[in-house]
Amino acid sequence: MNRSAAGSLTVVGLGPGNPEQMTPEAAAAVAAAEDFFGYFPYLDRLSLRPDQRRHASDNREELARARAALQMAIAGGKVCVVSGGDPGVFAMAAAVCEAIEEGPSDWRDLEVLVVPGVTAMLAVAAKAGAPLGHDFCAISLSTNLKPWAIIEKRITAAAEAGFVIAFYNPVSKARPHQLSEALDLLRRHLPADVPVIFGRAAGRPNESIRVLPLADATSDMADMATCIIIGSAETRLIRRGDRQPLVYSPRSYTGGKA
Amino acid sequence: MNRSAAGSLTVVGLGPGNPEQMTPEAAAAVAAAEDFFGYFPYLDRLSLRPDQRRHASDNREELARARAALQMAIAGGKVCVVSGGDPGVFAMAAAVCEAIEEGPSDWRDLEVLVVPGVTAMLAVAAKAGAPLGHDFCAISLSTNLKPWAIIEKRITAAAEAGFVIAFYNPVSKARPHQLSEALDLLRRHLPADVPVIFGRAAGRPNESIRVLPLADATSDMADMATCIIIGSAETRLIRRGDRQPLVYSPRSYTGGKA
Repeated sequence: MNRSAAGSLTVVGLGPGNPEQMTPEAAAAVAAAEDFFGYFPYLDRLSLRPDQRRHASDNREELARARAALQMAIAGGKVCVVSGGDPGVFAMAAAVCEAIEEGPSDWRDLEVLVVPGVTAMLAVAAKAGAPLGHDFCAISLSTNLKPWAIIEKRITAAAEAGFVIAFYNPVSKARPHQLSEALDLLRRHLPADVPVIFGRAAGRPNESIRVLPLADATSDMADMATCIIIGSAETRLIRRGDRQPLVYSPRSYTGGKA
Repeated sequence: MNRSAAGSLTVVGLGPGNPEQMTPEAAAAVAAAEDFFGYFPYLDRLSLRPDQRRHASDNREELARARAALQMAIAGGKVCVVSGGDPGVFAMAAAVCEAIEEGPSDWRDLEVLVVPGVTAMLAVAAKAGAPLGHDFCAISLSTNLKPWAIIEKRITAAAEAGFVIAFYNPVSKARPHQLSEALDLLRRHLPADVPVIFGRAAGRPNESIRVLPLADATSDMADMATCIIIGSAETRLIRRGDRQPLVYSPRSYTGGKA
């Protein structure tokens, strides 16, 4: 390969974890690349060839990882940056764009492709029924990147306006209390029986999907890999005997089930 | 096949349109089913075998379609209901759940699986950069299913709280004026230079991705198959000479770029 030719950078979404939920487009992008940058558990999902190189890093190192990937691409590398789920949702595509904006001007000449994937909330929602069937929002609870007051404002606005809410990054060792505060805040704005879904590893052998009323939701039901979906006042729960209940948000607005 | 055995119903997301963006899980679900229900353009995407049957219907017939599919499944059929994108986002999964809740009690005993897919806003976002890289929401502009006052309330709440906004179903022949009103409303709450993306057929040969400031966005830039992404006040645009600009929403909240 001619390493003096212009390289490229592809940001690829591997999907929620089940290989059957990764798109052929993402698989082709992985096959075409030579150098792989990403959080190590995502790189662990790939079966790389001997000629493909792995550059793993820890989480909270997204911007440094993006810069390293861009440096290798501008030098002629065929570079792939991987994210779990979709790379555009609280993930590496924004970090790569940020690095390009702040970086040397020739980084703007680089070919950058983003390959979408099934993001966690869609995989969790599918396992529960259709909780995202009406207007919804996605909020990252990470206070590494924004003040808690902004998160509280958005949770309140979303609950009051009737959005179903998906929480990403709900908890970490460095911030064990935010989810508990978020759930308390939601209880002040939503009925106690609103269905809440704690979804982890959707579609994988260690999948866990737990459905319970908002009144009973507690922060110890989540870890950093959990996606939490909070229904709106319109969200319904269908009991089904031995089968798991179905949770769905009706397409039509009815003005509240109360 | 023993048609007296219990049937099953699988709701499958075909992804945004490019076959390379449909998951292997969705392809396997299509291969395993015998009867297919869906809006006719989505059924047109499938290459069915001679032993597979097609039951196409028009849009705005979602609930009747769901009931017909459930009836066939409860009678022993291996039934597949298809949606474009993800079936849980303003699509057939919620219609199937609604039909089950309102239908005969034995419909609750049926095996119902939902297979997620790449929803339109993720495919459009990937083509533009990473506009959904920070907190975001999705709103259907269809007034077939909710009053315009509720839509206005949600648009205002989302814009004021700093969410990036994706509009689904932005316009139709029956409701040509909503998008224009929605854009006017957004202009009262957001800076004039906020990037807006009009995305259509992302990933397909007839793809159209148009990026322009909110001040210049007009409703004639969209049809019913367009997904529109409205940046927040934090969303950035990176100009890149001959290449299309990159639009991204930074992972960190900065308090406004002004």
